[in-house]
Amino acid sequence: MKAEYLLRTPAAEALYAKVAKLPIIDYHCHLSPKEIEEDAPFTSIGELWLSGDHYKWRLMRNAGIEEKYITGDASYQDKFRKFAKALSLAAGSPLYHWAHMELSLYFGIDDYLNENNADDIWERANAVIRNEGLSPRSMIRKAGVAYLATTDDVIDSLEYHKRIREDASFETVVAPSFRTDNVLLIRRAGYAEYAAKLTAASGVPVSGLDTLKAALMQRLDHFCDNNCRFTDIGIPDFPSRIADDAEADATYCKALAGEPISDEEYSGFLGNMYLFLGKEYYCRGLVMQWHLAVYRNASTKLFENLGPDCGGDCIGDPLKGADVIRMLDAIEKSAGGVPQTILYTLHPGMADQLQTIAGSFRGVRCGTAWWFCDHYRGIEQQIEVVADLGHLGSFLGMLTDSRSFLSYARHDYFRRILCNKLATWCENGEFDPAMAETVARRVCCENIKALIGG
Amino acid sequence: MKAEYLLRTPAAEALYAKVAKLPIIDYHCHLSPKEIEEDAPFTSIGELWLSGDHYKWRLMRNAGIEEKYITGDASYQDKFRKFAKALSLAAGSPLYHWAHMELSLYFGIDDYLNENNADDIWERANAVIRNEGLSPRSMIRKAGVAYLATTDDVIDSLEYHKRIREDASFETVVAPSFRTDNVLLIRRAGYAEYAAKLTAASGVPVSGLDTLKAALMQRLDHFCDNNCRFTDIGIPDFPSRIADDAEADATYCKALAGEPISDEEYSGFLGNMYLFLGKEYYCRGLVMQWHLAVYRNASTKLFENLGPDCGGDCIGDPLKGADVIRMLDAIEKSAGGVPQTILYTLHPGMADQLQTIAGSFRGVRCGTAWWFCDHYRGIEQQIEVVADLGHLGSFLGMLTDSRSFLSYARHDYFRRILCNKLATWCENGEFDPAMAETVARRVCCENIKALIGG
Amino acid sequence: MKAEYLLRTPAAEALYAKVAKLPIIDYHCHLSPKEIEEDAPFTSIGELWLSGDHYKWRLMRNAGIEEKYITGDASYQDKFRKFAKALSLAAGSPLYHWAHMELSLYFGIDDYLNENNADDIWERANAVIRNEGLSPRSMIRKAGVAYLATTDDVIDSLEYHKRIREDASFETVVAPSFRTDNVLLIRRAGYAEYAAKLTAASGVPVSGLDTLKAALMQRLDHFCDNNCRFTDIGIPDFPSRIADDAEADATYCKALAGEPISDEEYSGFLGNMYLFLGKEYYCRGLVMQWHLAVYRNASTKLFENLGPDCGGDCIGDPLKGADVIRMLDAIEKSAGGVPQTILYTLHPGMADQLQTIAGSFRGVRCGTAWWFCDHYRGIEQQIEVVADLGHLGSFLGMLTDSRSFLSYARHDYFRRILCNKLATWCENGEFDPAMAETVARRVCCENIKALIGG
Repeated sequence: MKAEYLLRTPAAEALYAKVAKLPIIDYHCHLSPKEIEEDAPFTSIGELWLSGDHYKWRLMRNAGIEEKYITGDASYQDKFRKFAKALSLAAGSPLYHWAHMELSLYFGIDDYLNENNADDIWERANAVIRNEGLSPRSMIRKAGVAYLATTDDVIDSLEYHKRIREDASFETVVAPSFRTDNVLLIRRAGYAEYAAKLTAASGVPVSGLDTLKAALMQRLDHFCDNNCRFTDIGIPDFPSRIADDAEADATYCKALAGEPISDEEYSGFLGNMYLFLGKEYYCRGLVMQWHLAVYRNASTKLFENLGPDCGGDCIGDPLKGADVIRMLDAIEKSAGGVPQTILYTLHPGMADQLQTIAGSFRGVRCGTAWWFCDHYRGIEQQIEVVADLGHLGSFLGMLTDSRSFLSYARHDYFRRILCNKLATWCENGEFDPAMAETVARRVCCENIKALIGG
Repeated sequence: MKAEYLLRTPAAEALYAKVAKLPIIDYHCHLSPKEIEEDAPFTSIGELWLSGDHYKWRLMRNAGIEEKYITGDASYQDKFRKFAKALSLAAGSPLYHWAHMELSLYFGIDDYLNENNADDIWERANAVIRNEGLSPRSMIRKAGVAYLATTDDVIDSLEYHKRIREDASFETVVAPSFRTDNVLLIRRAGYAEYAAKLTAASGVPVSGLDTLKAALMQRLDHFCDNNCRFTDIGIPDFPSRIADDAEADATYCKALAGEPISDEEYSGFLGNMYLFLGKEYYCRGLVMQWHLAVYRNASTKLFENLGPDCGGDCIGDPLKGADVIRMLDAIEKSAGGVPQTILYTLHPGMADQLQTIAGSFRGVRCGTAWWFCDHYRGIEQQIEVVADLGHLGSFLGMLTDSRSFLSYARHDYFRRILCNKLATWCENGEFDPAMAETVARRVCCENIKALIGG
Repeated sequence: MKAEYLLRTPAAEALYAKVAKLPIIDYHCHLSPKEIEEDAPFTSIGELWLSGDHYKWRLMRNAGIEEKYITGDASYQDKFRKFAKALSLAAGSPLYHWAHMELSLYFGIDDYLNENNADDIWERANAVIRNEGLSPRSMIRKAGVAYLATTDDVIDSLEYHKRIREDASFETVVAPSFRTDNVLLIRRAGYAEYAAKLTAASGVPVSGLDTLKAALMQRLDHFCDNNCRFTDIGIPDFPSRIADDAEADATYCKALAGEPISDEEYSGFLGNMYLFLGKEYYCRGLVMQWHLAVYRNASTKLFENLGPDCGGDCIGDPLKGADVIRMLDAIEKSAGGVPQTILYTLHPGMADQLQTIAGSFRGVRCGTAWWFCDHYRGIEQQIEVVADLGHLGSFLGMLTDSRSFLSYARHDYFRRILCNKLATWCENGEFDPAMAETVARRVCCENIKALIGG
């Protein structure tokens, strides 16, 4: 990878140079705090790349590779060979870009990976892992991460977050995020068991809506005591109505009893909870994140064989804008304002509309291109949507949303795309070159730093 | 702003030079005929830019500026300072482009506005306003506007249109457009009072569907007598069914009585009225405009504080194409043809589909990128949609849809984008250079001139 | 047309040179096997271009040309003159690109067509037709077509396919595709007559669901005996539920009796049949094609005057992704796998979502940009969608979907766009130049060849 990768002109290179080394604030990711705390060295690039990355598994399936070499019992080196071949044909894929950036940034390898050099690169990358003792913490340091927010169930003890915080030798802030998905998915099997765990974690016996909310407030206190600034909802459903407390309580009691819940009841319960959570987040000054329009586990066969998060998820159907408006408006009317909010959509066709919805409520912004949208085209389009319909200088910029310690390369990816875009506008006489660095610094780092109070 | 602004090559500059000075026909805007008639000079660029432009208010809110400096009691100069700062960070925004084009075209100021030079530009712009006595008519003249169509309620007396027409010293044609929104929004509070005004304006006592239609025909006669060529519907709802006259009459009587009307009744009534209006427009040779997929006043808090048209509107949910087809088909079957029709959608994801729907009915065209789509990317995409799926040589080109006398700069914006696009195709060998000027002239001026019978 | 048409750089030209002459495998078209078998020479470019091409008819209507010169009784030469004028103003239209490629490739004419040279080009093109004796087979040969799959009703005897196959003098494989639209459209008038034809063709008396399925299996055997590898469904509706056999049988008996069928019954019947067909295709190793989101015959007036396929079709409303998932998942669960499947959508806003759905099921791919999406922008976007969200190296590439023997120029169009894209990535350092030819060859020819077992 050349220094000027993705930078089309000298002006773009010059602008990028000014933000390339800014600290990374990765305000939404799925790294394991346990792994960070334990900091066990990695064993091979096969483990790093192929042990759990469903993006790569999906690419391999789409390339027609047998499951044995994806999630089966083949050796990591054989899997790596198959992946190398599939990747070498994946022109234009963000995985192609990311893999080569990771090879360059972490391993000093600047070759294009293919089936012929797969064994050579395997050896060279593994030598770097051994020689540098690459581990979670060393990779976080190497990437210059100042702050990262993990995604944590509300019942989490946050024990690993505490230990990391108490370890003065590790300078990166590792904060939890309050993710309520398991609380809200009340129609799944075994919900009552989850509620029992919430009871245990909170000390509040959860037996209906009131006690559920009391338990959640206890958990919120606990998260806030542990440096939490962000919250998240990422369930496939979005409420199309708001039930009052009596109805929501009745629905929730059905959930605890394992009784069936209709679509309408479920939607009303969700609406009641979104409203409750939004108000709580507003009062506590927490950031609210909604991840919209996802469909999970499309193939029953794949799900039954491998479980969730194995590459069987899809872009969901577009939400009704009217539903999103109803919910934001209800929170604003009820709480007097909307929390600082970040909306992400997995359906790119919703992006323009969602930006106009966000722009109608103070404190609500659209986030960066998410998951299936997180590629060159998607990042550029999301920058354009924010620029055209919102205010680019107030954009919160990149996050990884990743389970991989190598993914910090994506911040570099984003910064290059952003700088190339800004520089192009300046060169075309469409933006003031004297302001480009200010905008770039704000988007890459300063806006999100301000939001976490840094 | 340099002469070659947005023009990437000498061929684009040469093509633009051939259409730059063509007269402007602004066939859909929201200028006030009263202000044009009275022609009071403006007092400051603060008033011109910030007294009523909800695009700018929204940008400022999205940039986090306090409401005091947006719609509050701060001085125009303080508001201008805040706007200057927000704008200087709004890379890529159409407001950035427009503001700088307006500074250049009307005020001869070619600097990038920012918080440091805000006071200097404030003084220089205001000096131009004073020295040139900038007023509605002088700005219309300066921009080379040959024809403009305002948007007028059907009960409007058109008094100001008459006075302007009778004033031989003003050469621009200022025509009314027949906008039926207030007639159709029968579920809003106070509808009966509006119906009483329609009775008064038309001389036809409105007491049911028949008399409503008779009153509207009287108003149509009145508008046609006053040079009206265009009509418009811009309500958020679109009919999904067509009620017969008996049902529509029953619904309308409920509206007059202030009784609740169901979604289905409302939709059926709208369908009945769209059909009636479409037939009338066809018979009278009027142009029918439908503005689709808007959601108004998303934030109740903002609406209660500031009322409508203050920056709280959004892109609405995509319409069902089947609904649009049903309505056009019903008009065609009933009247023997569809009026000359222009369809606009605020949801960019509908653009390709809508163009194929338009192209299935004689006389129906898609209009230019509207409101939230009216930016460089949106204009270029709309040109591409028409080119790919329709017939670019028959495109009707730009309108401002604006309340601001400065907005004619947007015609220049559009002409530059169009010429750049056409010239690029010619340079790439994808279009005949000998035909580029013909196409550009048709789109910039001649097609719409033909439609108004010029 | 210059050799470097659509190729922006020398690297793009070099890459294109390597795939330009690869054989064409046109795996979905609407050519008439009868015309291929009979091989009657063409009489004029007017007949070739304007006798049945609804793309061109629509363009002419959108340009405001009288119906007389489109489908009326004007002479072909007069129609050609009108078309020439409309086309000369159709900047950016794929028809502009295709027409000029066809003039160049088949007639050696490299001028831009317009109303002034229309008569000259008319003469020159017709001279070529006469002198070269241009006929279906000569044009197929000239284009280098190795394999083409027509689209055939399940009751077709395939007599012409047999005759072509038995004629050793014609080296192109002409295979049938199993198109079930007429079987599935059970609510149309005269369905019982169609069922009687199916009875006659299959020898199985069709009197309910079981016999319908038995008859279809007989037809499948017949098609497979005649070299069939592809199947297709292209109806406007997509099932949102799956009826069990008893319910589907009851619905089908209503269809045979000419009784009304509700939307819900119809949808359930379709779901039952999609499942049945998917399982059969899986067992037989046939390729399943679904063409999604089309709306046919929007204008009743146009349909009543001219019938179907005359330029009155539209992009349909986006499907629910959840419906597509339900159907693929049901087939996979029931059959143990999904057939090799190609999904096409006419609504470009569904493209990203559909690619993620396809990518969740083994053997399912998205196809190339279809019909209203088949233009430069659409082809490029579809390549990007596959590259970003799928695996470009496994893409099946171009087909014509055309009724015209001139349309093979579109394969050249696609190859140029693909090569330009790949070369640009290579030049930008985003893809390995050493792999570009491999990817291009796979997409242009090898992947689809592998799928048909070549």
